Amino acid sequence: MIIQGIAAAPGIVIGRALVKKNDQLRYERRTVGETESAAEVGRFQRSVQASLQELEAIQEKTRLGIGEEEAKIFEAHQLFLQDPDFIGSIEEKIRGEGVNAEAALEEVRDQFVLLFESMENEYMRERAADLRDVSQRVLRNLLGVKEDAESGFSDPMVLVVHDLTPSDTAQLDREKVKGFLTDIGGRTSHSAIMARTMEIPAVVGLSTVTEQVQTGDLVIVDGLEGKVHIKPDPDLIQAYEEKQRQYAEKKETWNRLVHESTVTKDGKRVELAANIGNPQEAAQALASGAEAVGLFRTEFLYMGRDQFPTEDEQFEAYKAAAQAMGGRPVVIRTLDIGGDKELSYLSLPKELNPFLGYRAIRLCLDRPELFRTQLRALLRASVYGNIKIMYPMIATLGELRRANRMLEEAKEELQRNQIPFQTDLKVGIMIEVPAAAMIADQLAKEVDFFSIGTNDLIQYMMAADRMNEQVSYLYDPYHPAVLRMIRQVIQAAHQEGKWVGMCGEMAGEEAAIPILLGLGLDEFSMSAVSILRSRHLLKQLDHSEMRAVAEHVLSMENGEEIRAYIKEQVLSKL
Amino acid sequence: MIIQGIAAAPGIVIGRALVKKNDQLRYERRTVGETESAAEVGRFQRSVQASLQELEAIQEKTRLGIGEEEAKIFEAHQLFLQDPDFIGSIEEKIRGEGVNAEAALEEVRDQFVLLFESMENEYMRERAADLRDVSQRVLRNLLGVKEDAESGFSDPMVLVVHDLTPSDTAQLDREKVKGFLTDIGGRTSHSAIMARTMEIPAVVGLSTVTEQVQTGDLVIVDGLEGKVHIKPDPDLIQAYEEKQRQYAEKKETWNRLVHESTVTKDGKRVELAANIGNPQEAAQALASGAEAVGLFRTEFLYMGRDQFPTEDEQFEAYKAAAQAMGGRPVVIRTLDIGGDKELSYLSLPKELNPFLGYRAIRLCLDRPELFRTQLRALLRASVYGNIKIMYPMIATLGELRRANRMLEEAKEELQRNQIPFQTDLKVGIMIEVPAAAMIADQLAKEVDFFSIGTNDLIQYMMAADRMNEQVSYLYDPYHPAVLRMIRQVIQAAHQEGKWVGMCGEMAGEEAAIPILLGLGLDEFSMSAVSILRSRHLLKQLDHSEMRAVAEHVLSMENGEEIRAYIKEQVLSKL
Repeated sequence: MIIQGIAAAPGIVIGRALVKKNDQLRYERRTVGETESAAEVGRFQRSVQASLQELEAIQEKTRLGIGEEEAKIFEAHQLFLQDPDFIGSIEEKIRGEGVNAEAALEEVRDQFVLLFESMENEYMRERAADLRDVSQRVLRNLLGVKEDAESGFSDPMVLVVHDLTPSDTAQLDREKVKGFLTDIGGRTSHSAIMARTMEIPAVVGLSTVTEQVQTGDLVIVDGLEGKVHIKPDPDLIQAYEEKQRQYAEKKETWNRLVHESTVTKDGKRVELAANIGNPQEAAQALASGAEAVGLFRTEFLYMGRDQFPTEDEQFEAYKAAAQAMGGRPVVIRTLDIGGDKELSYLSLPKELNPFLGYRAIRLCLDRPELFRTQLRALLRASVYGNIKIMYPMIATLGELRRANRMLEEAKEELQRNQIPFQTDLKVGIMIEVPAAAMIADQLAKEVDFFSIGTNDLIQYMMAADRMNEQVSYLYDPYHPAVLRMIRQVIQAAHQEGKWVGMCGEMAGEEAAIPILLGLGLDEFSMSAVSILRSRHLLKQLDHSEMRAVAEHVLSMENGEEIRAYIKEQVLSKL
Repeated sequence: MIIQGIAAAPGIVIGRALVKKNDQLRYERRTVGETESAAEVGRFQRSVQASLQELEAIQEKTRLGIGEEEAKIFEAHQLFLQDPDFIGSIEEKIRGEGVNAEAALEEVRDQFVLLFESMENEYMRERAADLRDVSQRVLRNLLGVKEDAESGFSDPMVLVVHDLTPSDTAQLDREKVKGFLTDIGGRTSHSAIMARTMEIPAVVGLSTVTEQVQTGDLVIVDGLEGKVHIKPDPDLIQAYEEKQRQYAEKKETWNRLVHESTVTKDGKRVELAANIGNPQEAAQALASGAEAVGLFRTEFLYMGRDQFPTEDEQFEAYKAAAQAMGGRPVVIRTLDIGGDKELSYLSLPKELNPFLGYRAIRLCLDRPELFRTQLRALLRASVYGNIKIMYPMIATLGELRRANRMLEEAKEELQRNQIPFQTDLKVGIMIEVPAAAMIADQLAKEVDFFSIGTNDLIQYMMAADRMNEQVSYLYDPYHPAVLRMIRQVIQAAHQEGKWVGMCGEMAGEEAAIPILLGLGLDEFSMSAVSILRSRHLLKQLDHSEMRAVAEHVLSMENGEEIRAYIKEQVLSKL
């Protein structure tokens, strides 16, 4: 039998299934008297404390074993358990309605989950999954059940669960769990992201896989195509063993490219860079073959805390990233908050259309004290490596000049205090607002480089929120309008002798790379896991051929046609 | 003494002030017993009935004397008084809390007003003003006070009030009231719009004018510059009498152009068209010198009711507009709902960024039954004049083709049923999504005309919601990126021999017209009151000179510079 799901993490596994159902956590709703309710609140509070301790341990384990970004998830879980609104509501319910802690917990959780899930914002919907996860942990502690994600495992095992929470994923032992399958979840769920980082093949969104598979069944997890074969026949197993071997060989080929530079068949050199979210990821990026950091998102410094990071905290983070990259370029983007990204300690106006609102450089120019701190930290860190500064959401020359003026002021201040900084620090901007693309010739005269932020650029060009499923058909990186805009930006920059990178997800897409190479893109910045695959591809491409290909596809009428052409005429012929 | 306010309606008046304060409607909050509360509810209901009757009369008077659009305001007022939520809350308060009707009315009104005012959406904030107005009417009826907006007037009088509600404005006798001044309000408030239509000079947003002026004071209302002079000296009066004479002359000059065509000094012909919201406005447009209707917004047919308009209702409206224009072009835009425009009977998903969401053609293509009805009505009406169809928010060739395919199907259906329609009906699209502007060359091959919708185009290009004050500095029609985009669209259309109009507010701006003429715009569609002024301007301009001017300003760095250049080098030299 074959079931189709969503490919969440690549690779192929053939192994026995271990089906785990969450049916241990059973309890009865019961009412408690006034005297007992105080004891019940106490029992609840102890379970919260126990959960907090567990979370701290998991967070540390995740930080060391998986990564800083992934560990943040458990910091968020802890914040839930420290939220007086959530915890207070539960305690109140125990006291006020005289119910047991388990029931109060689940009923309040459901209210909060409902609230989060009713929001359009994907980030907020993810919070609902987090809240479910952390509530499950408290419930387990209330019921005195031990945490045992992997009990009963023998090598190689495929874990089959309704939903793998981030907690579960972080606890997985890579030696024991060779793959996983879930009923629910999507490509961008926390668990999927963690599976990719941990390189555990996974298929998610399989609806009823926990019903269709029994513990001990042989299954094939095809994380490349999102397929699951249950009790496959010997021929199929043999075919998949061959496929597995081919994939391993491919990865082997890619891995041999880790220290190579990126040069096309006809000798054109481009740069493959990584997008990172914190300094620790710089080392991973290097290990994955990155020649540079093309986008260091600084939001992590500001999120999941209760006040702005100090200049010194920022300085340490930027310095660490610069040092980790050992002289290779590190493009650091200044604060890009607002839109759908909020800070608990920064009250921003409610907006009807936050993506068209007060965010990124607009906010920084409006709050100079906040921006100045970041600029000083960046300047101070600049002597420890090859840092470049990048402003997000620039729409006008005026904004660029105001930002640069503040940078000059920060330099003068450091100079007065004899604090060293890189005097010829390079400064660039994101091109993600259509207006900026239209005046790229003017902007190019006053910057050192551009980096095209396709995620936002596409949504503004198509007037389609990329989070909104009703208009997702319009969000197409291959739409000729988008490709023409990209060409225009690259031409304008090259006219002034400036280089152009791209740090949207498009830069790492197999079908986009030939076009972008043909359009003259100089730097491709992507998630670290895509770098070696992209290098392998670029080394097989001919730059002058791709120029002709790019010109050809730009006259096509829609994105599907363009993607199909690249697949048939370029990728399939390699 | 001089006070500066906001110029709401042009013209100059010198006259005596009549200051009216809303201090007649005084009452005490008191509690009523259970038996009395039933009588109190009855008293409230009678006042609501009396108010509804008044509103019906005012609506009719407004429709005949001012216009259909303005009369709609009072339809909205009636809906408030028929809203079970609003009325029910008041009755419940009378019964539940045992308070008198006046207090219950004002307390419930305040809750609703607070709710409306907390919304970002300007339309919803305007609703708060409407609710205040209608509640005031009910309160007046409860207190048995008669309505007398103009009592005590002698010619010429300037009305001075804290806030002129739409009710007050509609009741004004143009023979008695020669101008008005208010403490609050802005250029786009209902009263300001009505004042312009009624051609009563007005200055609003004067903060404390009701305190600073006494009844009987001589005042000068300068509706051109938004100034008010209180007790002016004879020299100033003389100067203003001269200014008044000049303005009258200017209007006289403009009015002489009503039947002329629009031809520049060097013989280039362009078309001046009107934007209208309902068929009745077509006659006004003609009287104001319009050569065509460049944008007929069909939303009015769908709003302020509880179900979709039938095909016949739509047919009648489109036919009426076509006939009123007597063979002149009438560009009818298909339904542009969604975004910030909602229908009570059409449930739309809540969106995080409605301006980047499910709206206009996106919604119509997704709900073919709704679109088909409109297309059939348009086709049937097409034999009664020169109707052209225009699709809003087109972003891709695919959308255009799907819309055209539905139009073809509607034609075939009519043909089968032997219902006549214009077989070579012209079809165009709005260019308001940046992607459409980037593929204007491809789109131009498959349409008969473009109309540039600058209101939306600018907000997408700048990634700035035009309703959001925090980023309003970015919403600039003169930004070189916007002007370049416009040039690109016009060039692409002309390459294919198609004409290009513009129906955003920009088309009627004095400083924009010379640039747009220079860029080759063929049709300028604007509010009817701006047409003669624009014709006068265009007749003084030299097209070939403006081509050079447009090329020159397009290399400038920002909108302020461009506007200043046009003012100094073009407008001031006429």
